[in-house]
Amino acid sequence: MQNFVFYNPTKLIFGKGTILRIGNEIKSLGISRILLLAGRKSIKQNDVYNQVVQSLEENKIFWVEHWGVRPNPVLSHTTKGVELIRENNLEGILAVGGGSVIDEAKCIAIGTFAPNLWDVFEKKTKITSALPIFSVLTLSGTCSEMDPYAVLTNEEENKKWSIGSPLLYPKVSIVDPSVQISLPWEQTVFGAIDALSHIMEFYFQSKGEEPTTSIDEALIHSIMNSVDRLLVAPEDYSARSTLAWSATLALNGISGAGLYGGDWACHSIEHSISAIHPEIAHGAGLAVVFPAWIKYVHSINESQFLRWAKKIFNANNVQDGIDALKRKYKSWGAPISLRELNIAREEIPIIAENVWKFTQISSIGSLKELSFDDVKRILELAF
Amino acid sequence: MQNFVFYNPTKLIFGKGTILRIGNEIKSLGISRILLLAGRKSIKQNDVYNQVVQSLEENKIFWVEHWGVRPNPVLSHTTKGVELIRENNLEGILAVGGGSVIDEAKCIAIGTFAPNLWDVFEKKTKITSALPIFSVLTLSGTCSEMDPYAVLTNEEENKKWSIGSPLLYPKVSIVDPSVQISLPWEQTVFGAIDALSHIMEFYFQSKGEEPTTSIDEALIHSIMNSVDRLLVAPEDYSARSTLAWSATLALNGISGAGLYGGDWACHSIEHSISAIHPEIAHGAGLAVVFPAWIKYVHSINESQFLRWAKKIFNANNVQDGIDALKRKYKSWGAPISLRELNIAREEIPIIAENVWKFTQISSIGSLKELSFDDVKRILELAF
Repeated sequence: MQNFVFYNPTKLIFGKGTILRIGNEIKSLGISRILLLAGRKSIKQNDVYNQVVQSLEENKIFWVEHWGVRPNPVLSHTTKGVELIRENNLEGILAVGGGSVIDEAKCIAIGTFAPNLWDVFEKKTKITSALPIFSVLTLSGTCSEMDPYAVLTNEEENKKWSIGSPLLYPKVSIVDPSVQISLPWEQTVFGAIDALSHIMEFYFQSKGEEPTTSIDEALIHSIMNSVDRLLVAPEDYSARSTLAWSATLALNGISGAGLYGGDWACHSIEHSISAIHPEIAHGAGLAVVFPAWIKYVHSINESQFLRWAKKIFNANNVQDGIDALKRKYKSWGAPISLRELNIAREEIPIIAENVWKFTQISSIGSLKELSFDDVKRILELAF
Repeated sequence: MQNFVFYNPTKLIFGKGTILRIGNEIKSLGISRILLLAGRKSIKQNDVYNQVVQSLEENKIFWVEHWGVRPNPVLSHTTKGVELIRENNLEGILAVGGGSVIDEAKCIAIGTFAPNLWDVFEKKTKITSALPIFSVLTLSGTCSEMDPYAVLTNEEENKKWSIGSPLLYPKVSIVDPSVQISLPWEQTVFGAIDALSHIMEFYFQSKGEEPTTSIDEALIHSIMNSVDRLLVAPEDYSARSTLAWSATLALNGISGAGLYGGDWACHSIEHSISAIHPEIAHGAGLAVVFPAWIKYVHSINESQFLRWAKKIFNANNVQDGIDALKRKYKSWGAPISLRELNIAREEIPIIAENVWKFTQISSIGSLKELSFDDVKRILELAF
């Protein structure tokens, strides 16, 4: 087993009827003025907004609302959030929504202190301070509710990049899986595929280290089984809650403990797809890229990929495992080729160029460090 | 899935060569004067003490040493620790040892502020404040390094009772599994049985909730497999580290998330055995009590006990599972009957009376709430 540090100070409150606790949690930390950050109006339709506002009022917390966070959050909207914080002397941020809203909350939290926020993403300046972050999660997948990461798109430069810092752990996150029952089906699926991808980024580097390797298999089974059940019965709370907690465990430190830090090439490649095509959901892009990546790299750690094919799909070779994964994604209605994402073959070099920008600050991949040509070949396979 | 809160702010630093980081971790929190709490001299033989002292010196941390924590820590020794804290104006406690040492550190941490420490255990006064706690773990099993619980024996009243509070999470714990290679075999085994018992306390209440139920099975397999390997090769670092991290996960919040809070009857019964016989290790007592408890209660949640028998031992009924568990424990050299603990049949009512004292503050068992007669019958089965 590799050395590791497990440190995750987020207080996660999980279950039915827990949203009304958010106001008291904020007040308990001595905070009385917050920015309420949200995306579209869906939280007004599913009663989440009402519960949040009721809880804030009951706890005498003043708030300013900042609506319109996009599914792939952008720098300009984040900058406006920072302005609202400064104009109103706000002391913290409450994200109400999915991973994008929480990610933008994290960016506002550090943007309040950073002279230039994008410089932090470019690793030109360090994260030294952040406002306290709270969240009420409405879509499970990213684990932003209990991780120290944020992804942001600089829309002028077409860069979708990520940052990480222990300062970015939310203080308190509320996960009430029952509010996810009303989600559009594709959001449930793309959230689940994002969570599966987080686990696989760690898992495929494993050399069989226990207990993490077996825990990862348990999480993969739990997520796949939950989505299969939700396909038939979207209101199944047992499946919703299993999916939600599994998605949190997929990136809160448990799924990678003692392994090798994750590969993350698929995430980098997908970020470039959705940087250029912001209409493409992160999970949709991952559904397309991951099977191609597995095909391209599996021989490097063949025994682990074989273990995956066997344990997850009862398949006897990796190709059969890849086919089974694609069938599974397809059965959920997810795309499994670039073509289905309406991306033309001619765009492949453009996407690869965008991936390559990221090498300014990091290599691409870790199980196999990818060259520019490798990225193109994986995209060809994904086509 | 049941509602739950996952909150565990302990920073766990895991792996080979990590002990030298403890001084800097303490200094980083602004602490410069600590109580160094330890048991017997084994930490001087395995180089742990030297590493700790070197790290404290390098970080200019003043310390006072308090040796002699017993395997079942006692109130009188704890009280002396509190006196040392007060006399020397110490700001925190560093436990260097196994779960007993960390448990006593937690008791000293709250004893410094409580007018009467035992009143806290009797639930006559509340825990309002605690000194910061740090640990360097030398024996995996209790999870005291990453949990909010402590067990203490009031030796005058023969009461071995437990407390819990979020204030009792260690700030930083270091787990270097390589230092456990030199442990006496029975300590490794009893630590592993304690960890297995923690998981089973949660697991047997499960109604099949995922992902936790499958994660628990992964942890049980990991622990059993590690001990089997260590029986042949005690120096196997892979097995040592798997056992150590699995034991931490067994009670740090992961193994019970979304389940029913744990049954804890076996722990209460065992605490009474070792309250009366302090020479009996906690893990040894649990090895004897748990199979008897399973036999006595399994029909209440038969499907889960059957799942356990099948998944862990590939057995087709619960009795075969119990027999397999006893064979496993026996193969490790653990006792599987009260007789082997040198307890006479006549003592059974005395132990049951001691268990019954605990009903002053809590019921015994949750899957099945035990009567006085139930406790006696379980002890008869364990005889």
